[in-house]
Amino acid sequence: MNMGTLLIRNVVRDGVPCDIYIKEGVISSIGRGLDLEADTVLDGGGKTVMPAFVNMHTHSGMTLFRGICEDMPLSRWLDAVWKAETVLDDEFIYWATRLACLEMIKTGTVSFNDMYWRIDKAAKAVEDSGMRAHLTYCFLDGGDNDRQRRQREECTAMYEVSRVWSPRVQFGVSVHAHYTVCDDNMLWAADFVRKHSLLLHTHISETRSENESHTARYGVSPTRRLADMGLLGRDVVAAHTLWLSEEDVRLLGESGTTVVHNINSNLKLASGYRFLYNELRDAGANVTMGTDGCGSSNNLDMREALKTAALMQKAWREDPAALPVDELLAMGTRNGAKGLGLNSGVVEEGALADLILVDTDSAFFIPEHNFKANLIYAANSSCIDTLICDGRVLMSGGKVDGEKEVLARAREEAGRFIRKINSI
Amino acid sequence: MNMGTLLIRNVVRDGVPCDIYIKEGVISSIGRGLDLEADTVLDGGGKTVMPAFVNMHTHSGMTLFRGICEDMPLSRWLDAVWKAETVLDDEFIYWATRLACLEMIKTGTVSFNDMYWRIDKAAKAVEDSGMRAHLTYCFLDGGDNDRQRRQREECTAMYEVSRVWSPRVQFGVSVHAHYTVCDDNMLWAADFVRKHSLLLHTHISETRSENESHTARYGVSPTRRLADMGLLGRDVVAAHTLWLSEEDVRLLGESGTTVVHNINSNLKLASGYRFLYNELRDAGANVTMGTDGCGSSNNLDMREALKTAALMQKAWREDPAALPVDELLAMGTRNGAKGLGLNSGVVEEGALADLILVDTDSAFFIPEHNFKANLIYAANSSCIDTLICDGRVLMSGGKVDGEKEVLARAREEAGRFIRKINSI
Repeated sequence: MNMGTLLIRNVVRDGVPCDIYIKEGVISSIGRGLDLEADTVLDGGGKTVMPAFVNMHTHSGMTLFRGICEDMPLSRWLDAVWKAETVLDDEFIYWATRLACLEMIKTGTVSFNDMYWRIDKAAKAVEDSGMRAHLTYCFLDGGDNDRQRRQREECTAMYEVSRVWSPRVQFGVSVHAHYTVCDDNMLWAADFVRKHSLLLHTHISETRSENESHTARYGVSPTRRLADMGLLGRDVVAAHTLWLSEEDVRLLGESGTTVVHNINSNLKLASGYRFLYNELRDAGANVTMGTDGCGSSNNLDMREALKTAALMQKAWREDPAALPVDELLAMGTRNGAKGLGLNSGVVEEGALADLILVDTDSAFFIPEHNFKANLIYAANSSCIDTLICDGRVLMSGGKVDGEKEVLARAREEAGRFIRKINSI
Repeated sequence: MNMGTLLIRNVVRDGVPCDIYIKEGVISSIGRGLDLEADTVLDGGGKTVMPAFVNMHTHSGMTLFRGICEDMPLSRWLDAVWKAETVLDDEFIYWATRLACLEMIKTGTVSFNDMYWRIDKAAKAVEDSGMRAHLTYCFLDGGDNDRQRRQREECTAMYEVSRVWSPRVQFGVSVHAHYTVCDDNMLWAADFVRKHSLLLHTHISETRSENESHTARYGVSPTRRLADMGLLGRDVVAAHTLWLSEEDVRLLGESGTTVVHNINSNLKLASGYRFLYNELRDAGANVTMGTDGCGSSNNLDMREALKTAALMQKAWREDPAALPVDELLAMGTRNGAKGLGLNSGVVEEGALADLILVDTDSAFFIPEHNFKANLIYAANSSCIDTLICDGRVLMSGGKVDGEKEVLARAREEAGRFIRKINSI
């Protein structure tokens, strides 16, 4: 953790040149020609400063699942993933999460909300990478009594372990989904997160069939049932929320639940594409963006996901003015920060210094009329030159300290993993 | 033009290490440890060699329209573009096209099929960039008699001018669309291209409303009318083809017409997204990929466009196995080359040396199980390290000769253009 001072000279913020002074991880001053001493001085070289992206739903340990099950129906995809998950171990999780962090830093993401296994190893990987994350202990019991009890014990123990984690890494709880966790554990998890002021993370209505079978079984939608059980609220992050009724939208809005759109995963697995962005926004939900895991979406590139999301909203609504670029960027930055309870997602004095510098010296940023449209619709994420988390420079000139080792070790783990799967 | 020899050492082709020897712009030998002398030797550094992309429909002169009309309905978009087009001049076209070529080289495209104005200036820009292109003289008469006659004269004169162009730059003819060109000129253009063995380029059924108003006026679909007039065939490239009946698909297939999917433009302008890929392929059409111009799609990144196309096919067909990655890459490479009558789009002895080298030393290519899926679904286009056109290295290590000047001059032109628009 860097509790020193950082002065970034010569950047552009909302079209205006400025310097930014960061103290103890917080933006302390923004102005022209700041006459301040700092432990570190970074020349921004005229790059454009922006809040870094917040990835609100992923499974970072699945980064080493990239490309293992392509162009296949969901049932075969799930079989492949579940088979793969039987061979996971600590080393795998550590290096898969390091690889995920490296990829996120490279593409401008400073913070993420994660749902996966062996989160103590993931926590170590996030700490070593310098990023922020919410890592959630995942309930998935399939109705098995022994498993239910064991998971409560594990969750409690992991929460105790998490007290020594860096303040950048927060413990949370996941209820995997309304069709994979028993009622008792859902209620227990909700109670646990409230008692300890933690975040609750879940999947809601990702696929039509899961939604329909829930309604057939319980007589109400998944969202209605979760609302009745107290599993919606400002401390809840619900991923996908793709198959919603009008009442579901109202419930998510009234409760101030954070919903996460995962467009690339939804398209690639053919889960659906009519995400109710306008309706959820208008109802009062906190609408954010995520990439989902690399098993389905293949990458963790938030900028790219934002582009696809906007294109898809314009197309299915038959309205080229849908999801304008300012709202889109808010989904990817400050709405995410809000969902995680972070005072960030903006470049303002008093906010956490979680920033990126964008290199606009390329064909994609010519003409220069509309920086935001160029960033989202024209550029690719290699334009992200510098990433700062908590006032510390994690990437500069596109380079991340120690990246060669992460690539080499992740490659080794990938090889080991495939050999283990093939030997089952 | 480089008529010398080029030896590329140490690349990976279909997973196998090899060297590639290129003579007079053509791949002459592929093998391990080739013991051949060459004018130029390039160390491939273990990168993966692929055919470069072929962008089958764009308006390269519109690259300086990037970002000038965002998040607006089509009617306002067209007003903005048509206003902008009244102030174009030779300098604008030259530098806009140079910028387009630079962006295409950076993102792995070697060749493109273009429809825009002042194509003699565009030809100079393509020649100077080292790429290949088909530049089409564009008929757009709006039923005006004087304009009809003048355009025939201009087309004939431009064809004569084109005889001194580099062999890499081919002259063609565009019929802008079935609703902007009179019957006489459509027939004249079809006759002209057949007489001179040229390519005919057109838009077909981009929007539902254009399609419906055509059918209301003529009693048949645009495709049916063009078929009856002799405007389909193996020498015809039809962009968009988004609103097609079963009969339309059959006609395009039977005639062997090349159709071009422009997904990002179609989504962004909310034109539609149910491109009939499977149906057109099965009917026998040559299905290819394009980016459209930067006025609508904001960039010329074929790799990114291919990703969006596949995601969208999977989603709207509700089939995650739709448009598998091998077919997708064929759309972006060899099908395009076929449509342009080029012996390229493959890495094989005897084919034109229009190649890219992909740098796989990054997080996006780990694990390494599936190079093609990693390239399309995980990476961004900065992974394209080297581009070779006609046996000549146009980009190496991500650097293009003279790119700084192109950026500087294009920025100047963009400024001049905006001042001209604002003074109207």
